[in-house]
Amino acid sequence: MINLVLDLDTGIDDAIALSIAAKDERINLLGVTCTYGNVTVDESVYNTLALLSLLNRIDVPVYRGRDRALISTSTYVPHEAGRKIHGKKGSGDISLKESKRKAETTNAIDYLSSLMMKRDDFTIITTGPMTNLASILLSYPSLSTWKGKIIFMGGALTVRGNVNHFSEANIYKDPEAAKIVIESGLDITMIGLDVTERTRLYRKDAEKWKNRKSEIGRTLGSMLDYYLDNTLGLDETYVHDPSAVISSLHPEFFSFISLPLTVETESIDRGRVIVDEKRLMERDKMVKVALDVDRNKIETFLSHFDKYL
Amino acid sequence: MINLVLDLDTGIDDAIALSIAAKDERINLLGVTCTYGNVTVDESVYNTLALLSLLNRIDVPVYRGRDRALISTSTYVPHEAGRKIHGKKGSGDISLKESKRKAETTNAIDYLSSLMMKRDDFTIITTGPMTNLASILLSYPSLSTWKGKIIFMGGALTVRGNVNHFSEANIYKDPEAAKIVIESGLDITMIGLDVTERTRLYRKDAEKWKNRKSEIGRTLGSMLDYYLDNTLGLDETYVHDPSAVISSLHPEFFSFISLPLTVETESIDRGRVIVDEKRLMERDKMVKVALDVDRNKIETFLSHFDKYL
Repeated sequence: MINLVLDLDTGIDDAIALSIAAKDERINLLGVTCTYGNVTVDESVYNTLALLSLLNRIDVPVYRGRDRALISTSTYVPHEAGRKIHGKKGSGDISLKESKRKAETTNAIDYLSSLMMKRDDFTIITTGPMTNLASILLSYPSLSTWKGKIIFMGGALTVRGNVNHFSEANIYKDPEAAKIVIESGLDITMIGLDVTERTRLYRKDAEKWKNRKSEIGRTLGSMLDYYLDNTLGLDETYVHDPSAVISSLHPEFFSFISLPLTVETESIDRGRVIVDEKRLMERDKMVKVALDVDRNKIETFLSHFDKYL
Repeated sequence: MINLVLDLDTGIDDAIALSIAAKDERINLLGVTCTYGNVTVDESVYNTLALLSLLNRIDVPVYRGRDRALISTSTYVPHEAGRKIHGKKGSGDISLKESKRKAETTNAIDYLSSLMMKRDDFTIITTGPMTNLASILLSYPSLSTWKGKIIFMGGALTVRGNVNHFSEANIYKDPEAAKIVIESGLDITMIGLDVTERTRLYRKDAEKWKNRKSEIGRTLGSMLDYYLDNTLGLDETYVHDPSAVISSLHPEFFSFISLPLTVETESIDRGRVIVDEKRLMERDKMVKVALDVDRNKIETFLSHFDKYL
């Protein structure tokens, strides 16, 4: 059993990642902290609560996190391109019914830092900018020796970025936060575009989900349809955020290499994940980077996911 | 026994690579083709002939290759920064005595293309821009199915470049040539900064070589001294070109991953080696990329090299 906290900017692929974490019987979902990115932090809270309700998991607490990058002075609101991929409110062209629940009154930073101080038998998976986690590491130096695991979806090491040639969107939205987390020396795994652009979700997955006739099946299927229409414009699309959750269950689907990574925060390649040349020889504070993936195994996993819906 | 053709822009680390190939009894050095880069092509020919004479290998034929990048209109002459690293003529602050031999009258392109058409039981190692090899592939489409091996020193995939954040010097000097070779589908291994910046030659290696009292020992030792003074400015320096030759003898010193690489030829990151996003799924024409290296094994190999001098 894997104990998990998800840190989500709940758009469409986050919703699929959340559904896997909420339904797979090998995962004990402790809580969800929300961040901004695909949507605003408030939309992330709204969508997460609504989806957990459809998933019959109103037992999972939801916490509101930071609303902007560490050094930003205004609430993050997605640009039009981001809105196009995930829909106006992050749920494609459908409206998610508002949950009867609200987010916990404790904020994400307080919740997660307290949990980390109490226990280390869980994994944190981030699917958006790493502002919440970086804020915790800035505030609680004692957590620099935390023994739990962190998996982040983000970065592009051997492939081009998706914002520009260098930078992947989650890192790009808060390079300083990513740098703090990635250089922290904690047990960190990077699931970046190197692997997520090599696997696919298909129109036929959306069809299967909708065919379950459940509200969550119809909802996720219709969100995936929208995502298919607005990413590659094909009957297939990348598997970004779900890959991070799948990697916690099946690290053997991936090939990893350990590298002393950093994040560029200056110059034209701001937001680029790269080996830190100052630590080439020392090899401390290494990150496990997924550089290859067994595409068939991921796609088979996803093709069986409909049984939970 | 490994049959080898070296394609060299003979500066200091090329000279060390050449010496290993000329002296290690497991290598059958068929010939050396010369290119520009650390030096002009004529200086590369001069230095190669001079070194082979000191190495008692005047049986190895030397061929003059292209003097400039594929799309350049003037002979390549190193900029001041390059001159600083390898010395005014590529041999540090000493003058190499002119060999009595001259380069073969056949040029490098004709020699190497003929050899490739006759046999495929050899490895080509390039330590400079890949203009010679690219010219051959452009001129002889039938060689697109050549079964021999190519190892190139160059590129930077998980680390920054050494010309700018993106580009390594050998690729930077002729990105179009590198792209042609790297996308050719031949059996290609990349020994880039990812590994060469992780290993070291030391001042004590230079001392050992000079202590051999042979002319080649004194020459290589003094060249390495100069290189130590002008690269990191420390009593240690990177192992670029020798790593490529060592990898032909000891691939087990390195960790490889196979990736469908390309070279950026446009935009700010011109000269960057990166995975070709158009071939992410197809995985044809893969290059074996060295991403990690057992530093101790390389350094031990080099610490025993003085026995040949």
